[in-house]
Amino acid sequence: MSSQRHFLGIEGMVRADLEALLSRAREHKRSIEAGFRKTPLAGRVVANLFFEDSTRTRSSFEIAAKMLGAEVLNWSTRGSSVSKGETLLDTVRNIEAMGPLAIVIRHTSSGAPALCARHVRCAVVNAGDGMHEHPSQALLDALTLMEKLGGLDGRKVAIVGDVLHSRVARSNLHCLIKLGAQVVLCGPPTLMPSGIEALGARVTYDLTAALEGADAVMLLRIQLERQGESMFPSAREYARSYGLDAARAARLEEGAVVMHPGPINRGVELAPDVADGPKSVILYQVTNGVAVRMAILEACA
Amino acid sequence: MSSQRHFLGIEGMVRADLEALLSRAREHKRSIEAGFRKTPLAGRVVANLFFEDSTRTRSSFEIAAKMLGAEVLNWSTRGSSVSKGETLLDTVRNIEAMGPLAIVIRHTSSGAPALCARHVRCAVVNAGDGMHEHPSQALLDALTLMEKLGGLDGRKVAIVGDVLHSRVARSNLHCLIKLGAQVVLCGPPTLMPSGIEALGARVTYDLTAALEGADAVMLLRIQLERQGESMFPSAREYARSYGLDAARAARLEEGAVVMHPGPINRGVELAPDVADGPKSVILYQVTNGVAVRMAILEACA
Amino acid sequence: MSSQRHFLGIEGMVRADLEALLSRAREHKRSIEAGFRKTPLAGRVVANLFFEDSTRTRSSFEIAAKMLGAEVLNWSTRGSSVSKGETLLDTVRNIEAMGPLAIVIRHTSSGAPALCARHVRCAVVNAGDGMHEHPSQALLDALTLMEKLGGLDGRKVAIVGDVLHSRVARSNLHCLIKLGAQVVLCGPPTLMPSGIEALGARVTYDLTAALEGADAVMLLRIQLERQGESMFPSAREYARSYGLDAARAARLEEGAVVMHPGPINRGVELAPDVADGPKSVILYQVTNGVAVRMAILEACA
Repeated sequence: MSSQRHFLGIEGMVRADLEALLSRAREHKRSIEAGFRKTPLAGRVVANLFFEDSTRTRSSFEIAAKMLGAEVLNWSTRGSSVSKGETLLDTVRNIEAMGPLAIVIRHTSSGAPALCARHVRCAVVNAGDGMHEHPSQALLDALTLMEKLGGLDGRKVAIVGDVLHSRVARSNLHCLIKLGAQVVLCGPPTLMPSGIEALGARVTYDLTAALEGADAVMLLRIQLERQGESMFPSAREYARSYGLDAARAARLEEGAVVMHPGPINRGVELAPDVADGPKSVILYQVTNGVAVRMAILEACA
Repeated sequence: MSSQRHFLGIEGMVRADLEALLSRAREHKRSIEAGFRKTPLAGRVVANLFFEDSTRTRSSFEIAAKMLGAEVLNWSTRGSSVSKGETLLDTVRNIEAMGPLAIVIRHTSSGAPALCARHVRCAVVNAGDGMHEHPSQALLDALTLMEKLGGLDGRKVAIVGDVLHSRVARSNLHCLIKLGAQVVLCGPPTLMPSGIEALGARVTYDLTAALEGADAVMLLRIQLERQGESMFPSAREYARSYGLDAARAARLEEGAVVMHPGPINRGVELAPDVADGPKSVILYQVTNGVAVRMAILEACA
Repeated sequence: MSSQRHFLGIEGMVRADLEALLSRAREHKRSIEAGFRKTPLAGRVVANLFFEDSTRTRSSFEIAAKMLGAEVLNWSTRGSSVSKGETLLDTVRNIEAMGPLAIVIRHTSSGAPALCARHVRCAVVNAGDGMHEHPSQALLDALTLMEKLGGLDGRKVAIVGDVLHSRVARSNLHCLIKLGAQVVLCGPPTLMPSGIEALGARVTYDLTAALEGADAVMLLRIQLERQGESMFPSAREYARSYGLDAARAARLEEGAVVMHPGPINRGVELAPDVADGPKSVILYQVTNGVAVRMAILEACA
């Protein structure tokens, strides 16, 4: 039950691990662009276990696995024995008993992939767990930034929005700091975890201050569908204070890029013309996601 | 953003385009029957985006893609980010950013595939859009008719039923006329689009007249589940006036064939003994669907 | 419409058929362990038609098919034309018209796969039908018992629980008796089919008597979700009388094994510490499921 091949979170990784995966992802990108296909995972099975809705991440892992020649088993909470009340661990151990190379898990509970990893012999890949981590997203964001900015050392990245509930923010914070970048976290005080500065970030509640000198702005998705208790007055109010609109985007540094993990609430955290504008690298992030996940899955073998 | 590789509708195609696809489909049929497999799309991804339920069409495109060696990404509105309110274009652009060869779209809105085609670089294939077109269905119907009737020039095809709401009728009308057939449209006046004769068809509200001399009868599915406002008194009443029962089928020409795009409302537009009888080529249509879709997907490359 | 390649139930098979499949399954296990992959079904399609929820069985057939090089078409009642009211036979005939090698069917109605088999030319595999049979489960159980006990002739197997509603019990009963084992059925009188002794089993309502001298205990899943009319007072009461807890498990013979088809109701028919304990071969059953299903699908070709 060695955990060395698991991919559970950025927090437990060192810079060299991250750089090795990023380097391998770049090689995969070059291979795809050259139309040259290797299938190192032919005959192996990657199981996608998604206990939470997803388009991008599930599809991206699926394509990544198939590009490496692996077979993909898709499994979601619908149409499965979870409707018969089976526990997470029983489900995962059953899937594992069928012999997959890796199990890719998305779950609403923080720590679910780590729990699974302690009970199976195959590799476990965290595809997003509750409010904990979304490590493959952080890697694809890092790859995007390195390609667009030419490197991360000393670069300033602003992460804006609901930092409190965001696994994307948490993984990116760990990843960017390990790779030498400076991180500014910005959002309403109600959506900022207390003491987060201890992880090495600067915190501000003022968007203008956060954007000043930023090489990249990463907008977080406001989880309108989860906003049970109201953390801010309204979507319109949020957009006014923390949304990146055309006027604010225009004041960004020359060469600065705008990122978003998707799906976008257009007009809330990000104005449509900025999302589709020249500074946006959002779809480039998605393209990089496939290459990064190829590197992650390959490292499971 | 050239649209030359898209497959959006029969209306915009010329006879030579249709014949080239049909010819290629026949070659694929021969290869399959001979057990000879080519995989020209190995390493490529075909994304199936179905925003509307489907058995036949989704499965048929999936098998067609896999027979060509492609990997298939299945995506439906359930279990996806559409439940998070993402727009159609954002979803499609995200899928496209993952590098598929083609995106196959079924959508409840007429024109959705054409809209997508204007915003992505990969090929877009229309698998049925609202009340607009279902072009792969028309091609598989044409292939079936050419094989069963020995050709289409001068042949008389009756299309019977809810022409108003039918994308199958619309695509078939364009396709059959381009390929030289005569088309008679028949159905209740409330379900017949006004001015449809302008597209080259003859219209009648009398089934006996429509069937007279017909080489083929194509029954349309009555969309009982969509029949919000009542376009006809009842299913029984519809069957009496416009259903193809055994008595009517017996009066068809020697060699005439009975078609239906499926799924059949047995006992409404088509009597069970006719659906399963000797004139029926309904399952033959399904078989041809795979070959036609292989030709369509191959042409995307 | 020869039925020789169908796999519909253990009842209609002879010992030599079962042994041939088990022998082939063992060869597949060795190949997988050796990392040696053959793809005898390359270019062929296996269609999974699941009209009832399933994790294990659907995934197991899918992985088995892919390990043999086949393409898999997954089809479930959700997102399909069944929501448009299509009949089972129309659905199956349509899938068949697309040319699959085999259709794997799970259905809530006993006899549904056999009905389909009479109407299609491709092979039909029963993946569980109502309260009738679950023949691939019986085969994987037999493989597990042969490996763990060194053979089945003269071995005593206790099947405990809701025998009345269990397709697993029915298939295992046929399979174990054909392979020379002695079967004791045990459960509450309300959940025991009358006259079942005629099939060659001994019946007892006393768990202690059933476990005495048993080489294997197979616990059945209590279908809590289907228990419309109450067949026993409560889950707690059931566990007390018929659940395998640590104390009872401790009294089992040296070398005896504990089996369960899954998903387990932990604490009802099986105590968690027994499910995860040293006598349990439950996950081994799952592993064997892939090999057994490879043998079944291969035999369809």
